[in-house]
Amino acid sequence: MVANTSKARHYDADDLVAVNTLRALSVDMSYAANSGHPGAPMGMAPLFHVLFSKMKLNPDTDKDWVNRDRFVLSNGHACALLYSVLHLLGYKITLDDLKAFRQLDSNTPGHPENTHTPGVEVTTGPLGQGFANAVGLAIAQAHLGATYNRAGFDLFNHKTFVVFGDGCAMEGVASEAASLAGHLRLENLIALYDDNHICIDGDTDSTFTEDVLKRFEAYGWHTEHVPDGDTNLGAIDAAIERALAVRGKPTVIKVTTTIGYGSSLQGTAACHGSPLKMDDLKQFRQKFGIPEEPFTVPSKVYKAYQEYALRGKNAESQWQESFTAYEAKYPELHQELSRRLSGGLPQGWEDKLPVYKPGDSAIASRDLSAKVLAALQASLPEMLSGSADLTSSNKTIWKGAVDFQPPGHVAVGSYQGRYLRWGDEEHAMGAAMNGLAAYGANLIPVGGTFLNFVAYAAGAVRLSALSQLRVIWIATHDSIALGEDGPTHQPIEALAHYRAMPNLHVWRPADGNECSAAYYVALKSSKTPSILALSRQGLPQLQGSSIEVASRGGYVCYGGQVGEQRDITLVSTGSEVATCIEAAAILEKSHQLKVSVVSMPCQEVFDAQPEEYRLSVLPAGAPVMSVEAASTRGWEKYSQEQFGIDEFGASAPCDALFKKFDITPSGVASRALETVFFYQGTQNLRSPLQKALQKTRP
Amino acid sequence: MVANTSKARHYDADDLVAVNTLRALSVDMSYAANSGHPGAPMGMAPLFHVLFSKMKLNPDTDKDWVNRDRFVLSNGHACALLYSVLHLLGYKITLDDLKAFRQLDSNTPGHPENTHTPGVEVTTGPLGQGFANAVGLAIAQAHLGATYNRAGFDLFNHKTFVVFGDGCAMEGVASEAASLAGHLRLENLIALYDDNHICIDGDTDSTFTEDVLKRFEAYGWHTEHVPDGDTNLGAIDAAIERALAVRGKPTVIKVTTTIGYGSSLQGTAACHGSPLKMDDLKQFRQKFGIPEEPFTVPSKVYKAYQEYALRGKNAESQWQESFTAYEAKYPELHQELSRRLSGGLPQGWEDKLPVYKPGDSAIASRDLSAKVLAALQASLPEMLSGSADLTSSNKTIWKGAVDFQPPGHVAVGSYQGRYLRWGDEEHAMGAAMNGLAAYGANLIPVGGTFLNFVAYAAGAVRLSALSQLRVIWIATHDSIALGEDGPTHQPIEALAHYRAMPNLHVWRPADGNECSAAYYVALKSSKTPSILALSRQGLPQLQGSSIEVASRGGYVCYGGQVGEQRDITLVSTGSEVATCIEAAAILEKSHQLKVSVVSMPCQEVFDAQPEEYRLSVLPAGAPVMSVEAASTRGWEKYSQEQFGIDEFGASAPCDALFKKFDITPSGVASRALETVFFYQGTQNLRSPLQKALQKTRP
Repeated sequence: MVANTSKARHYDADDLVAVNTLRALSVDMSYAANSGHPGAPMGMAPLFHVLFSKMKLNPDTDKDWVNRDRFVLSNGHACALLYSVLHLLGYKITLDDLKAFRQLDSNTPGHPENTHTPGVEVTTGPLGQGFANAVGLAIAQAHLGATYNRAGFDLFNHKTFVVFGDGCAMEGVASEAASLAGHLRLENLIALYDDNHICIDGDTDSTFTEDVLKRFEAYGWHTEHVPDGDTNLGAIDAAIERALAVRGKPTVIKVTTTIGYGSSLQGTAACHGSPLKMDDLKQFRQKFGIPEEPFTVPSKVYKAYQEYALRGKNAESQWQESFTAYEAKYPELHQELSRRLSGGLPQGWEDKLPVYKPGDSAIASRDLSAKVLAALQASLPEMLSGSADLTSSNKTIWKGAVDFQPPGHVAVGSYQGRYLRWGDEEHAMGAAMNGLAAYGANLIPVGGTFLNFVAYAAGAVRLSALSQLRVIWIATHDSIALGEDGPTHQPIEALAHYRAMPNLHVWRPADGNECSAAYYVALKSSKTPSILALSRQGLPQLQGSSIEVASRGGYVCYGGQVGEQRDITLVSTGSEVATCIEAAAILEKSHQLKVSVVSMPCQEVFDAQPEEYRLSVLPAGAPVMSVEAASTRGWEKYSQEQFGIDEFGASAPCDALFKKFDITPSGVASRALETVFFYQGTQNLRSPLQKALQKTRP
Repeated sequence: MVANTSKARHYDADDLVAVNTLRALSVDMSYAANSGHPGAPMGMAPLFHVLFSKMKLNPDTDKDWVNRDRFVLSNGHACALLYSVLHLLGYKITLDDLKAFRQLDSNTPGHPENTHTPGVEVTTGPLGQGFANAVGLAIAQAHLGATYNRAGFDLFNHKTFVVFGDGCAMEGVASEAASLAGHLRLENLIALYDDNHICIDGDTDSTFTEDVLKRFEAYGWHTEHVPDGDTNLGAIDAAIERALAVRGKPTVIKVTTTIGYGSSLQGTAACHGSPLKMDDLKQFRQKFGIPEEPFTVPSKVYKAYQEYALRGKNAESQWQESFTAYEAKYPELHQELSRRLSGGLPQGWEDKLPVYKPGDSAIASRDLSAKVLAALQASLPEMLSGSADLTSSNKTIWKGAVDFQPPGHVAVGSYQGRYLRWGDEEHAMGAAMNGLAAYGANLIPVGGTFLNFVAYAAGAVRLSALSQLRVIWIATHDSIALGEDGPTHQPIEALAHYRAMPNLHVWRPADGNECSAAYYVALKSSKTPSILALSRQGLPQLQGSSIEVASRGGYVCYGGQVGEQRDITLVSTGSEVATCIEAAAILEKSHQLKVSVVSMPCQEVFDAQPEEYRLSVLPAGAPVMSVEAASTRGWEKYSQEQFGIDEFGASAPCDALFKKFDITPSGVASRALETVFFYQGTQNLRSPLQKALQKTRP
């Protein structure tokens, strides 16, 4: 247990007490909860003890200090250990909180949640996500360092540590992210692989026999192996020290451990996901000299961790001094960075949003989106764009944008670059964008792919929403109108899927002003991710649109004043709004009907408007028919009748497809007519919004 | 161009003509379509020519011959080349079909679709899927070989070839599948990597600089590299021959090619996704001596491919002879295999389905599912179960099940085994299950994970549905009731997502008979995948349930006869059905209301019932309120009012969560009361099913 590099410190009996205390706390927590995962914490306690004794963290200021080291527990089920360490360090997690592990309204939930628990950077548990989050955090550090560091001012020089297990190592999202991190040469990223050879199904021999370190070498990582991670704290320390010294590569350290170390079931899957039985707990305590009283923490353990925390506090103090000196030398950079650290957007940024008049030419909303990005990029240096290998299709890049690339590598760019080449790695892109958004300094990741392929990243999108992260998806080719690529690429269920997800805004703008509105609301919604579903084909500028009205999520864009008598309301989004307006003209001319067309680019934002407004848009007395070139599911909330596509698309030119599915002015008009006849004579026809049970989105 | 192993054949000028014909056909197709991807076909034409000259395929019997070689184009955008090769071989794809590339109702869609085009084994295009499909096909071959081959009867000994590009190499789903294929030692799987160094964003140097072959070595693959794949047909041939000889490992052959070889834009992303311009087309034709008339095929090229096809036809004839001889020697195996090849299930299999009476004890539906699997496994040897590392949670294994494992490896099992240890690789599991289901021989893959993590595989689930493949997901832990694991693991939007997907059955059974019904319909639906959402907690056996009524997707399970006057209908699924029945008792006792409870385990199957039946279940005249512990979105189709959870869950014990979200008998009753009051006095209240526009699911 003697360190084998000069920088590694000496470990003694007190460290063993600390390690065993961590083990015991985790065991006690899952025993008290009668659920949870004691095995991984028991195996990883040495790793955690060594690592957290080195990290620069300030429990007092928590996530307010931007240059703190970042820690991600990708195998989030081991969170009892994380909460225990955070408690020892002095984060606002009390012993009572540990005792309330996995109970309602505790700050110690079953998997780490960034919105619930001090010291938790990102929400993890779904396997592989945390690993990719960490790559996003490391990108953020490299980018901000390149942008704001100056000689003598290493404002952003912290490390990002991520712990992952076999489960994460198997997940594709982590593989994608690891390949990317190698390409990007993220030298401040250090991953610790808890190689305990056990997954839920038992020995990993049954399913996972690849050479993980060799794979990471293939990605361009530096690799280390600690074969005796249960006991050799010095070796873990030395490996981390070597990793800290590596330049030009991320590092993975494989730490071979024993799951449930100390349990009579150690080394088996039996101690993975169930608390220890009382007799096992007893022999564990006896073996390691742990007091019988649960949740006992020896004072010397607290003392040691207070010292670690003190080092972090001092480091922050020095950083704050340095940042003050930075102000004197680089006042403009300081001002910009201070603004970003405060979380505010620059004054007047929204004045840059493009505005359109009805006479303006038709433009595809993917191009409208490009115009917004180009207009805003100078005002919003915190906005980082990118695409999952569809830059030319997603139109996510602005003129003069520099690629985020490692210095001196094969590709042109620099770490100052704000354009990310994610490759065909949608899931890693989504998860890394979560890391970017969670980093702080107001970073706003914007990432592109086809709407249909956001589904590859569904696991990450869900965590954006749950974690309240402002991530913006540029989801182009938003319907069958993408044409010839065919049904494999044409979204049908996508909009319904994301609209059913809590805390997610799904926008499908119908024209230029609506596209600007989508960005306006998305950028202002600092705790909500957004998906912008954008067209490949041109969209005419509507008569009734404006950023202001579209920012309400839904509005009457055609058909007279609010309150006027109607025969039918057509509610629609995106490219079908113009089709509805053409249908309205047919219905008025040939059938003398009064038709209102409602554009509803974002249901969630519309839902948040006052009831009076919503009822003025979708009033009682006339039937409402929805029109969208996608699954009709969910539109029943806003309409009596639905017209859409409840089957898969087809490969053909765009116009041929709209004809095939009859989503044309005449196709809409004939269905509207059916609807009017059907509801004719219905007494007191309610608005679809008038319900017995009032639901509100949180 | 001389072969460098004894088995590789000699290539001459005629081969070059064939290669250039393939290039020209692909170029002509995208030019005629004014869309498509000529670049990859131009680069891969040599590879395709060599490969398809070796494959054992019978264009006449197409997918009817079970021991044909399998081919998967994972980079599906290169399908012009595949269609061209299939045309030359004599599949039912005419020159006119090639001319109608990417047009409505043609059999040459923009990406390969197994349901549209002869010779296309699986639907590809979404990157990485095809690679994982191929792993599934190779598993199928290994399993059937181990099960049915006997000395002298190599009934299943074909190869599975998959071509993939850089995009697929980047996707996590392919990484997962590659790791698995290495573990499983699938020696009959040969992957050809089109290493053209170009992705849509340009040179792969901008995003993807890992060492792909080293990565595959880490997975346990044999690797080969052909550095001059544009011209050296002999080297491609030799590498394939070496791959064919490899034992105990899958092989990947990196074939370095030039995208758009022959175009003036060759080697750039400019020829990836756009047709060649006319002047480029002209110089290309001139350079390679290709006739000016588009779609010209020299007769000697047809002749050569007829010979290749003839070899395949002869191979099938021999196989059929062998299969006849097999009948004599192994009549029982022959009978079973013949039954499977005909696509039929064995007579009386459904009699094995467990049946329950109201008095029977409460059982979690994940355990009910386990009982079904145990009851059916002996009758249905074509059923292969498995789990993404959640065997003990998903209850996907039956007593005595043998793991599918390579012989002589570290894990216990054999290729005869019918239990697949997928590891934490949900996406690869989904995509490989598609390969298994597409294989033929009636294979029925059944795979488990938590309902919330089916989303990791959403891309594959979509392709199951589009490709009409009978894949069954055992999706356990189907609501907040999973409890302490918390919101990261608790599905909210999942059911709404999958219900909006065309051609997918989403089941959420409320008791034992409903669970049996779910399997009954899922197994009989040979062209539709199913997701079975199953509970962790116990569910009581309902009074009104039976396999027969539940097989209609929805039925009145409580509350008197069909047609009887009601005050309210509660429609629900899974664990909430029993809650609704308890609520009904409260409403009847305390408020003298007549309440019907409808259990609707599968909306899609209910939708397919005759209108009269559906209206008898959800009649007009009384309001309908839906109750489900998940997003309410989509339930508006079946109800006026919805009670559910439109926010994320929380970490706490199951009962505490039901209380928090008020999904209890009294919570349901109070909302039902509100609903009754609200609709009291409404004249002629329609059933939610009575609509102007009648939609039918295809």
